[in-house]
Amino acid sequence: MKKMINDPARVVDEMIEGLVMASGGRVVRLPEVNAIVRSRIPDGKVALLVGGGSGHEPIYHGFVGENMADGAAIGNVFAAPSPDIVLAATKAVSRGKGVLYLYGNYAGDTMNFDIGAELAADEGIRVETVRIADDVSIPDKADRRGIAGLLFVVKIAGAACASVDSLEEAVRVTQKAENATRTIGIALSAGTVPETGEPTFVLPEDEIEIGMGLHGEPGVRRGRMEPADDLVDAMMARILADLPFSRGDRVAVLVNDLGATTMMELLIIRRRVGQILAEAGIEIVDTQIGSFCTSQEMAGASISLIRLDDELLGYYEMPAKSLAFRS
Amino acid sequence: MKKMINDPARVVDEMIEGLVMASGGRVVRLPEVNAIVRSRIPDGKVALLVGGGSGHEPIYHGFVGENMADGAAIGNVFAAPSPDIVLAATKAVSRGKGVLYLYGNYAGDTMNFDIGAELAADEGIRVETVRIADDVSIPDKADRRGIAGLLFVVKIAGAACASVDSLEEAVRVTQKAENATRTIGIALSAGTVPETGEPTFVLPEDEIEIGMGLHGEPGVRRGRMEPADDLVDAMMARILADLPFSRGDRVAVLVNDLGATTMMELLIIRRRVGQILAEAGIEIVDTQIGSFCTSQEMAGASISLIRLDDELLGYYEMPAKSLAFRS
Repeated sequence: MKKMINDPARVVDEMIEGLVMASGGRVVRLPEVNAIVRSRIPDGKVALLVGGGSGHEPIYHGFVGENMADGAAIGNVFAAPSPDIVLAATKAVSRGKGVLYLYGNYAGDTMNFDIGAELAADEGIRVETVRIADDVSIPDKADRRGIAGLLFVVKIAGAACASVDSLEEAVRVTQKAENATRTIGIALSAGTVPETGEPTFVLPEDEIEIGMGLHGEPGVRRGRMEPADDLVDAMMARILADLPFSRGDRVAVLVNDLGATTMMELLIIRRRVGQILAEAGIEIVDTQIGSFCTSQEMAGASISLIRLDDELLGYYEMPAKSLAFRS
Repeated sequence: MKKMINDPARVVDEMIEGLVMASGGRVVRLPEVNAIVRSRIPDGKVALLVGGGSGHEPIYHGFVGENMADGAAIGNVFAAPSPDIVLAATKAVSRGKGVLYLYGNYAGDTMNFDIGAELAADEGIRVETVRIADDVSIPDKADRRGIAGLLFVVKIAGAACASVDSLEEAVRVTQKAENATRTIGIALSAGTVPETGEPTFVLPEDEIEIGMGLHGEPGVRRGRMEPADDLVDAMMARILADLPFSRGDRVAVLVNDLGATTMMELLIIRRRVGQILAEAGIEIVDTQIGSFCTSQEMAGASISLIRLDDELLGYYEMPAKSLAFRS
């Protein structure tokens, strides 16, 4: 395992330094805390705080910016940010209208953000929470993990928080976006943990796993490698069975690289997704292709769909500017 | 080697289908030719045609769009587009003001684009050419390869071609951007050819090579893996020795993933680049981080700098919209 890092214990620290530099002054780091916030957050704005473990870049910290998140609480690699990080970030983004927490549905994140919310309440800051749970490989919505579909939810939440007058309205729009988002992934090979060089899981050379999580959590189907179209058919069937689509619905599509998958493959996947949706009478209004939610250098991809009614489409189409997402 | 493809002989074909679908109508494919063009190109516009072999996505075909390239001639994997593809694309983008060819300085591309230009001249279309040769690992400029710095050159050429009145002026601005761009890469491990599953080169497990080309062409220094800062120091020394920088100069920086390198690493690289340039008194006005010029799933990265005077900065800052680059 070769990675371009320095001291393995300092990867998160140095990554944040690079992130702040790359923002060109638009993002600053909080003193002595692994959190970043926009350098200018308008007064009276409903604030949006995202966050989670490092190692999945660009989520979440690459999405801090204009009409995107106001700040990110950053955990260590594959670990939730601690409550004190969440609290510090909450205080830094708060502008008097409350703070919306938006993060993936993982036990550690839920626990630490919830504690952060309680501590914030003690300091007079109202917090509401939306958890992203878009991974359809898990039947029960309450247990679903947050994976690449979070790009769409963060995008819409960012636009909503920049536009609406109340935390309640921001929660409503964001929860609506979350409810309309579905993702399924496929893993071809594991990434490695930067601190140890160890793979996050082991997958035999000739096998793939549909639905595997970002840290190697079990999926729904392990099997031999198959042609891309067959794999996409199986993945799309899961998504379309889960989200009640109707002919005439509009969606945005994300084909996400989990780390080491080529854009050539992502485009071949996108081709099949387009064929399937055309047959179903579902209109694709936008496509995003690239590395938005990764698991280090994992080979694999995920497909996300968000169904966009007029309201969500309006927020989706608002211009946004962050390091890792511009529109 | 596992890739999400179907028939290995059809990867380019299916990739183009996906690319056209992902464009949402903004890009169309020419009939029976591996070339794409914008669906709407204004009359009287100086046209910009880019192109090269597939397998390096998103270059070049991911950069066709508004204020970017008007079309792309697409070769097979790691192979130049044939002259008939170049000719067909030339005719499709031409709007009476001439066509600027912009591509990487490789023998095959040069030969085929030159033949295409001759065939176009026979049909009354004026063509001028700028070749991108930004790889400072090769001493002689005439022999330099075009690598990731082409993002900057295509961006500025696209803005110039959308703005200026004559092919001569587009050539002048584009050549100026090319002259101001420098890149050096580092390879950690090879990607594989989709059709065969074979690696493009072999690098021992504990070695890296600075300056290695996108197809495994020899670099300038092979050695043991070192801390990222040391590698970046060696890479930046090559760039800064080549492009005469002065204190107070402005640059844009690209830290490019060659395929399987994490954004965490790219940001750690960006941190060191920032430290070095701050010490040299060179101002970074923009940072791009991501996968712009790849060699399948090669692990490695490159650093590109473009020096921006007022004129180039103006073109650099024009909004642009394509699948793989938006600003």
